[in-house]
Amino acid sequence: VFSLQLQTVTLIPGDGIGPEISVAVMKIFEAAKVPIQWEERNVTAIQGPGGRWMIPPDCKESMDRTLIGLKGPLKTPIAAGHPSMNLLLRKTFDLYANVRPCVSIEGYKTPYTDVDLVTIRENTEGEYSGIEHIIVDGVVQSIKLITEDASRRIAEYAFEYARNNQRNSVTAVHKANIMRMSDGLFLRKCREVAENFKDIKFTEMYLDTVCLNMVQDPTQFDVLVMPNLYGDILSDLCAGLIGGLGVTPSGNIGANGVAIFESVHGTAPDIAGLDMANPTALLLSAVMMLRHMGMHDYGKKIETACFDTIRDKKVLTGDLGGKSKCSEFTEEICRRVRDMD
Amino acid sequence: VFSLQLQTVTLIPGDGIGPEISVAVMKIFEAAKVPIQWEERNVTAIQGPGGRWMIPPDCKESMDRTLIGLKGPLKTPIAAGHPSMNLLLRKTFDLYANVRPCVSIEGYKTPYTDVDLVTIRENTEGEYSGIEHIIVDGVVQSIKLITEDASRRIAEYAFEYARNNQRNSVTAVHKANIMRMSDGLFLRKCREVAENFKDIKFTEMYLDTVCLNMVQDPTQFDVLVMPNLYGDILSDLCAGLIGGLGVTPSGNIGANGVAIFESVHGTAPDIAGLDMANPTALLLSAVMMLRHMGMHDYGKKIETACFDTIRDKKVLTGDLGGKSKCSEFTEEICRRVRDMD
Ligand SMILES: CC(C)[C@H](C(=O)O)[C@@H](O)C(=O)O
Ligand SMILES: CC(C)[C@H](C(=O)O)[C@@H](O)C(=O)O
Repeated sequence: VFSLQLQTVTLIPGDGIGPEISVAVMKIFEAAKVPIQWEERNVTAIQGPGGRWMIPPDCKESMDRTLIGLKGPLKTPIAAGHPSMNLLLRKTFDLYANVRPCVSIEGYKTPYTDVDLVTIRENTEGEYSGIEHIIVDGVVQSIKLITEDASRRIAEYAFEYARNNQRNSVTAVHKANIMRMSDGLFLRKCREVAENFKDIKFTEMYLDTVCLNMVQDPTQFDVLVMPNLYGDILSDLCAGLIGGLGVTPSGNIGANGVAIFESVHGTAPDIAGLDMANPTALLLSAVMMLRHMGMHDYGKKIETACFDTIRDKKVLTGDLGGKSKCSEFTEEICRRVRDMD
Repeated sequence: VFSLQLQTVTLIPGDGIGPEISVAVMKIFEAAKVPIQWEERNVTAIQGPGGRWMIPPDCKESMDRTLIGLKGPLKTPIAAGHPSMNLLLRKTFDLYANVRPCVSIEGYKTPYTDVDLVTIRENTEGEYSGIEHIIVDGVVQSIKLITEDASRRIAEYAFEYARNNQRNSVTAVHKANIMRMSDGLFLRKCREVAENFKDIKFTEMYLDTVCLNMVQDPTQFDVLVMPNLYGDILSDLCAGLIGGLGVTPSGNIGANGVAIFESVHGTAPDIAGLDMANPTALLLSAVMMLRHMGMHDYGKKIETACFDTIRDKKVLTGDLGGKSKCSEFTEEICRRVRDMD
């Protein structure tokens, strides 16, 4: 008997609409005969020794073994002191690069066309250090931590990404006129790394100027690299330009191939279980994942089927302007995938 | 002989195109017979005792007396350790509220219509504290400082602004999910102040979500209040929606009536002295100034003349899509102002 080696991917369906959009992605992967198998894991933070919040051991163990995860939305914890699960995942696996391509989708009308850029966000430090103090009553400080290592690492990632993805320029986004030491260090590392990538054009721009230029003409941007918070802001802004978080993929990349791909929209509890959710963001994140795993052909096939479905406007979920159910939209993509064989 | 009491305003023409757009504003004020007189002052930082950078004493003295300033763009200092003059001015006069109305301009086409919002930015602390340290080699921290007093003060300003300007809602913009203590304190003060303004609707929104929603539908926003850096970003983003920094006014407001109104675009050294600059941003800032001084009728008259000139598209500077000189554009506004008599 010939047995096919299937690569395993850890699937974290998540909360709210997470499970149903995960089912949608699994169906489409099945239709495309993608040679992977899913290993489903739940993620609810548990408290380990000393009360430290952690990812459940069976999820940690799975990720440590498979190295690749696909994740739906997780609900925001409400308990005081409870960490954001999204952040805990990024931290646990040292997923230092948050990569969000924003590409205009044919047939999905927004005020912008021809957007084609990628935000690359430092994902481990900066304003997300979690270090805060009360100095005296009524005076609080939060610490933005910038290190040479993390700055160089993300700059290198950005330039390598540009080179490997046939992109021409990298823009470092900063406020080094204000945060001279921290953003200054970040910027210096970007400049240094740029020296080793003479084939990629390097520019620097203030964050405020990027925001202004972005809404006036996003086509001027290509790859953008920046500290953590700026990436949080700019990636959402850019998602807005092409249609919102319902259609934008995201990847969190670490060293040695470890990565978690995720839809960054919310859990939409109001429509959970009603077969109304739009699985596009998770599906396109799964396509990013396939490319990351070297399965470019499968990725292309699924992506094409998804974009064709949106462009043809016949079978669309409510948020995309249609009347179809999640399952119908999914089935339409499956049909197109099968037709490509 | 009857002698009219003229109020004095400190005029800081600034660098690059600053002087010529200041002349434009003065001409238009003259045409409108605004009962103020200008007191011109230069601003180049000088070093006082102990090397501390400061505003030249004759400018400080003028502002302390007149309480009101109008300011063109200042060039960014390149000397290491030299402070931004814009920030030094805000600090010297404790101008704690940075107010930027963004209103769509009829006839000036952008992808957005009906934008009508105001960003109100805390202007004295936060990420602009200027406190930074090298912890060890390659590890740097910047401190974001949030105080109860400054947060309450800016929240109160925002709600009072809303009430006094017939606006219905205030949105507090924050990342208290990440910076729980600092943004948390800011948000708490906003909530407390909101309790005293039951006539104004209060909402809270994450900065990233605001950015996303802003580019998708800016008409949902009214007054937005936020810490320093978020205001820097969001005010530029919003300016981009209505046509850029060339057409957006700005005011820096302190206690007891002190205020400096400024155009926030650059000095445009490439076109300085060529009679090509667009004085609109400085003029609209001067209109904000008139309203601040209680001269609403003069403000309305000049604003109308400016907007009518832009709407009619016959006499426009290059950046507005026309071929006219700064002086011609200015003269056209003067003509319309005179015609209103
Ligand atoms: C969920 C939240 C903690 C997160 C962030 O702030 O990074 C989100 O906005 C994102 O962009 O992934
Ligand atoms: C000139 C610069 C220091 C300033 C800032 O960062 O606040 C500017 O961008 C602004 O918005 O007024």
